[in-house]
Amino acid sequence: MQRSFHQIHDDRCIFAFGPSNTAVETVGPGSIVRFKTLDCFSNQITTEDQFVTGIDFSRVNPATGPVAVEGAVRGDALRVKVLDIVPGAFGTIVTVPDAGVLGARTKQATTRRCPVNEGAVEFCGMRIPTRPMIGVIGVAGDEEVSCGNPGRHGGNLDTTLIGAGATLYLPVFHEGGLLALGDVHAVMGDGEACVAACEVPAEVTVEVDLCKDLAPAWPVVETDDAFSILVSDEDLTAAFEEGFACAVRALAKANDLSWEDAYMLASLVADAGVSQLVNPRKTVRIRIPKTHVSLGALLEALHMEA
Amino acid sequence: MQRSFHQIHDDRCIFAFGPSNTAVETVGPGSIVRFKTLDCFSNQITTEDQFVTGIDFSRVNPATGPVAVEGAVRGDALRVKVLDIVPGAFGTIVTVPDAGVLGARTKQATTRRCPVNEGAVEFCGMRIPTRPMIGVIGVAGDEEVSCGNPGRHGGNLDTTLIGAGATLYLPVFHEGGLLALGDVHAVMGDGEACVAACEVPAEVTVEVDLCKDLAPAWPVVETDDAFSILVSDEDLTAAFEEGFACAVRALAKANDLSWEDAYMLASLVADAGVSQLVNPRKTVRIRIPKTHVSLGALLEALHMEA
Repeated sequence: MQRSFHQIHDDRCIFAFGPSNTAVETVGPGSIVRFKTLDCFSNQITTEDQFVTGIDFSRVNPATGPVAVEGAVRGDALRVKVLDIVPGAFGTIVTVPDAGVLGARTKQATTRRCPVNEGAVEFCGMRIPTRPMIGVIGVAGDEEVSCGNPGRHGGNLDTTLIGAGATLYLPVFHEGGLLALGDVHAVMGDGEACVAACEVPAEVTVEVDLCKDLAPAWPVVETDDAFSILVSDEDLTAAFEEGFACAVRALAKANDLSWEDAYMLASLVADAGVSQLVNPRKTVRIRIPKTHVSLGALLEALHMEA
Repeated sequence: MQRSFHQIHDDRCIFAFGPSNTAVETVGPGSIVRFKTLDCFSNQITTEDQFVTGIDFSRVNPATGPVAVEGAVRGDALRVKVLDIVPGAFGTIVTVPDAGVLGARTKQATTRRCPVNEGAVEFCGMRIPTRPMIGVIGVAGDEEVSCGNPGRHGGNLDTTLIGAGATLYLPVFHEGGLLALGDVHAVMGDGEACVAACEVPAEVTVEVDLCKDLAPAWPVVETDDAFSILVSDEDLTAAFEEGFACAVRALAKANDLSWEDAYMLASLVADAGVSQLVNPRKTVRIRIPKTHVSLGALLEALHMEA
């Protein structure tokens, strides 16, 4: 199949990643795919009088797709380069009782609808520069996981790094990989404190490709000068532990070091960061500068057991 | 007392911050103070044959000082601007069984001694650019806290942001504040994975000043374009919750917003970050850009109950 352009409309979407997903389209490696995406509420909220507590919750966090990549088989890495994200003209932000980092103090559902124009979100009289990113992006994994939760397959990673220019590496579990994405944010802070960001429908353009036989155990995002390993777990401390265990493996492999030396090197150059603190599984990231690890060494060191 | 220059030698140090601390010198607001500091092992390790398991542990994490600032009384903020940090010529990195993020996997004490020269640390044949920072910096609080632990008084914050150019705001509990600092790192990654960084003796030059009646409930570090609130807790999730609770208070105060609107704004513009994951109390930080809060509003919103 030739490199080509494909467009996937937002009426084709899933609410869970898993073995029962079936492709809405098959594209060749190197193809450009534009996904039109609904916002995380399936565009159900259009005024500030509507609250999350009143919408159809079975339609929360849709991901457009999935798209199969020809030739992708279990054990490969799906390489997704984010070329462009165009947010819609209005964003929605909400609070939800008992949700978010301060859930216990959140007694009230509230909704703000914010014009998004000329690179800024209008919120309470302020103009906040946009930093568009993809909240939900993943492949079909071995188990069915709601689009509201992240995991080894990707999913609701809510990672601010996944914006235009970034490249995401996801493990392939099933033939074609079955990539789907949605839940775009016009702007979000690390942590996604209140459980929502500036939630927008969007058009997301990506290039998809394969790295044969290099499925990473966890999603990896590549930015200009670093790789970040994205680990999700219900327990934050366990997530950081697994993230650093991966980083130490990668640094040992890339620099031919003993485990102890690689652990010390990680303590000097690898940075623990936070993606989101509010989904059932939290997502953390360990950032390793490219000066200390190559893509090949990283993916080999993190290779998923098939 | 006039603005003046003072030098505190590394033979004057404390191993705990608390009510029993007494000043080794008193300086006026606006003074420049240079602290000579021992490394976190009190310079006990000088070869790679010496391990942490063999040193005198009662002398770990010394902080040079304390210095009293004339006029500082309970309820004020001590303003400490870091002017310069000059690391010593050798750094020490170690692993310690059962310590660090991967403590359970660390079976062996190891030591690396690394030349530090021309802005780089030599480690296993690599040259890692230095990013000098202060690991331990704090004031005498209401309770005695080992220099190995952080808290509202500062202490072992191990925050990479506390380098030259940064300004730290600490609450004053006792007359004079009683500032002490040490545990300088030539370079460290966020998290301080293996429980140590590149540990160096150093010369640290700071300017001390007061913000009357503006003691923050937690240390705040000011960098070029943001303020970061530093919260420490044994439980990571609780630390992030307290950090965001502070951020929401500050954003509400600075922008005259309801709690719900400030919570949503925090979700858009405040970033959760990690300082260290390896001390008895972990330290996290919530970063708020200066575009959304002024120093005055921040310190007023975080005002410690005296």
